[in-house]
Amino acid sequence: MKGLIGVLGGMGPAATVDIFNKFVSFTAAGSDQEHIPLIISSIPDIPDRTQALLHNGNSPLPVMEDYLHRLEVAGAECIVIPCNTAHYWYPELKKACHVEMLSIIETTMGEAKASGKTNIGLLATNATLAMGLYQKNIEGLGFKCINPDQSGQEKVMESIYSLKAGNIAQAESLMAEQVATLFQRGAEVIVLGCTEVPVILAKEIKQHPEKFIDSTASLVRAGIRWYEKRVGKTDLLF
Amino acid sequence: MKGLIGVLGGMGPAATVDIFNKFVSFTAAGSDQEHIPLIISSIPDIPDRTQALLHNGNSPLPVMEDYLHRLEVAGAECIVIPCNTAHYWYPELKKACHVEMLSIIETTMGEAKASGKTNIGLLATNATLAMGLYQKNIEGLGFKCINPDQSGQEKVMESIYSLKAGNIAQAESLMAEQVATLFQRGAEVIVLGCTEVPVILAKEIKQHPEKFIDSTASLVRAGIRWYEKRVGKTDLLF
Repeated sequence: MKGLIGVLGGMGPAATVDIFNKFVSFTAAGSDQEHIPLIISSIPDIPDRTQALLHNGNSPLPVMEDYLHRLEVAGAECIVIPCNTAHYWYPELKKACHVEMLSIIETTMGEAKASGKTNIGLLATNATLAMGLYQKNIEGLGFKCINPDQSGQEKVMESIYSLKAGNIAQAESLMAEQVATLFQRGAEVIVLGCTEVPVILAKEIKQHPEKFIDSTASLVRAGIRWYEKRVGKTDLLF
Repeated sequence: MKGLIGVLGGMGPAATVDIFNKFVSFTAAGSDQEHIPLIISSIPDIPDRTQALLHNGNSPLPVMEDYLHRLEVAGAECIVIPCNTAHYWYPELKKACHVEMLSIIETTMGEAKASGKTNIGLLATNATLAMGLYQKNIEGLGFKCINPDQSGQEKVMESIYSLKAGNIAQAESLMAEQVATLFQRGAEVIVLGCTEVPVILAKEIKQHPEKFIDSTASLVRAGIRWYEKRVGKTDLLF
């Protein structure tokens, strides 16, 4: 089927379920056949991205390239990667990729810019913060980037790894506290710059969508736009 | 990664999200890396299965074989198909398949037999009913199979196509009525023999899991058992 999108997932599996669910629920389809064609890799033995960048762990790059190529041989024409930290290796992955690839950092920053807000909170992994994947972009626009302080950031990481271990209640309560703190410190909107975070905050996002810029959702919207253009649809949904 | 399970999905996309979600949530994993490796095809341009079997529509078989082979080239070692009606073509698909394949009809019937109940309700598509995919098996065990009557079955189909068109509230209300009727008519447990039905009845299943045999969940449990055996884990989860 024309326009097949390959999802290089598994980082982690719950975030990959979330992007798949958003592709299905964001598509205005009247039947099975009108949905976006997807091929999804959720092969989770990719070395931990934060461990690799901050604690001398194994690089995930060779394994990511392997799974990327599997999506290509299965027919994918465009690759999306629902993991923000993995985008540290985006230049190498894009070079290794024989088809199109969308960057979650670019799609998220596009929505941050369009939000009209200038005090931007940021929830992301230690590695995404240390590599400046978002701060450089946010500050480059002349906006203020508000991160949790050191102890708050420890709670963010504890929340993310709690979700990865299946402890959703603990993940929610730890993350909700950091959300409240960022708003108290002047954030007008919060970039959810880790794909586990929208899973953890799903209930809060549903109640107050205007408070958050969900990186996963921005990648899905860009993927749907890419597909509509690829198949020549003129009635763009977004 | 050893033990890669290929999910031949897209029939429909929402049911494919559901099986993926169940693979992740049924796995007792402490980190990303401990999850079951999956490669999922959700390419939905497969001709409608009920249309093909009952209304002279195009056969889905050639397209299903194409997508099955894509999963094989991507490295899948075992195939699962989260669509009951598609299992009419299971013998041909199994013949065309170069790796292992699990049958949702077999895994569901295994759980029906283990339930200890003998009055079995059945919610499935018109085509699954017309081909007798479940009734023959249920009656073969000497059990009673209780289907909706003709007007009830029309509501079941309306509910399934409502979900496929994104109208969840309508799908829920139509299906809940048929559930109540089957229990009034003497069903002790209901086989959800269409993978859209557990999506539609998700809230009711959560409240009363003992009332239902969810075909998707049975396929996931069998997939996890297959994986544990493949990788030589001795601490079986189920």
